[in-house]
Amino acid sequence: MVGSAPRHTTRATREDGQVTRAALLDAGTALFAERGLTGVSLTQIAEAADAFPSQVTYYFGGKEGLFVEAACRGLLRVATRVEAAGAGASTPEAYVRAIVGTAVHDPGLLTFVEAMLVVRRHRDLAPTIADTFSRLHTEGERAVTDTLIRHGWSLRTTPATEARAFWATVLGVALERAATGEHVSTDTAEAAVLLVLNLHPDQS
Amino acid sequence: MVGSAPRHTTRATREDGQVTRAALLDAGTALFAERGLTGVSLTQIAEAADAFPSQVTYYFGGKEGLFVEAACRGLLRVATRVEAAGAGASTPEAYVRAIVGTAVHDPGLLTFVEAMLVVRRHRDLAPTIADTFSRLHTEGERAVTDTLIRHGWSLRTTPATEARAFWATVLGVALERAATGEHVSTDTAEAAVLLVLNLHPDQS
Repeated sequence: MVGSAPRHTTRATREDGQVTRAALLDAGTALFAERGLTGVSLTQIAEAADAFPSQVTYYFGGKEGLFVEAACRGLLRVATRVEAAGAGASTPEAYVRAIVGTAVHDPGLLTFVEAMLVVRRHRDLAPTIADTFSRLHTEGERAVTDTLIRHGWSLRTTPATEARAFWATVLGVALERAATGEHVSTDTAEAAVLLVLNLHPDQS
Repeated sequence: MVGSAPRHTTRATREDGQVTRAALLDAGTALFAERGLTGVSLTQIAEAADAFPSQVTYYFGGKEGLFVEAACRGLLRVATRVEAAGAGASTPEAYVRAIVGTAVHDPGLLTFVEAMLVVRRHRDLAPTIADTFSRLHTEGERAVTDTLIRHGWSLRTTPATEARAFWATVLGVALERAATGEHVSTDTAEAAVLLVLNLHPDQS
């Protein structure tokens, strides 16, 4: 009994820690979406998660660390939605239109752009962004390969190239859309569709 | 003499105004490049331009207005350098490699990305960004058309589509490069080259 008590306490503490960490990420995500990085304080995030400000520092190094981690988690969720959006398409054009359209309308892309700019002044957070891109590219390559096999479609380049170029392009389109408004950037979204569609030359 | 004096004064004042405006833009550009938007105050920019803080407000509406205008002027200069970089290329591949490589390495792209994010919270500045994209796309379309005619190359899509997709893609690649470091994003820059190269199918 004496021997097992500390182990139990340690495990409970570790589980509590995971719960607190997740609660802080959720609270931060909601507050940042509403007010932006500069409009929210570390104390407000801690309060919303029923935690202490020192726990934000402990788990994320600070407000910027929490912001970057929330943005990275958010982008990986965008990737899941993008893959789901493309799953029902029966032609290469419908597929590309679905994945580009879903990605560029998702506010998660802009939060991630903001996180990339934050990292310019917080280089210690750069590995989090790099890891996210790495996962994004790996998952994207797998999704493209699956799609090609399922439909018997072909590519001029490789699935890895397609995945990398897709994310770079939709990040740029989402930015233009956010800054200039819906009307102007519809043309650019369409241009992105045509650009990515060129990767399916045999079906055009 | 009495009649012409005020006119002369008005003209002199207007010219002085243009000089002050340009000096503020130059000072802002240099200081923002060094310390970022949040690291520079309106007073510091005015001092560096030998002007009054009230003149920043008068000409640009405030520090953010000056930042956005400096970033837009900067991006149009990037476009000029990109066009110059492509002028010497003798194959479609060399052309695309030169324009993508020149664009994604230019810090002016990241300043413009930051300006696009600023505009999310300062909607009155959105028309400046929209006008810049409009000029960028028009100039880009002309540059692509000139290049096609000069070399006798052809496109699968239109020069307007190529110009729009090019800028969206290089903005995304520049962001990834800035956030993750040189190594990782070289692959994405290469992916962008291959994507844009698909627009020259007859030469591959």
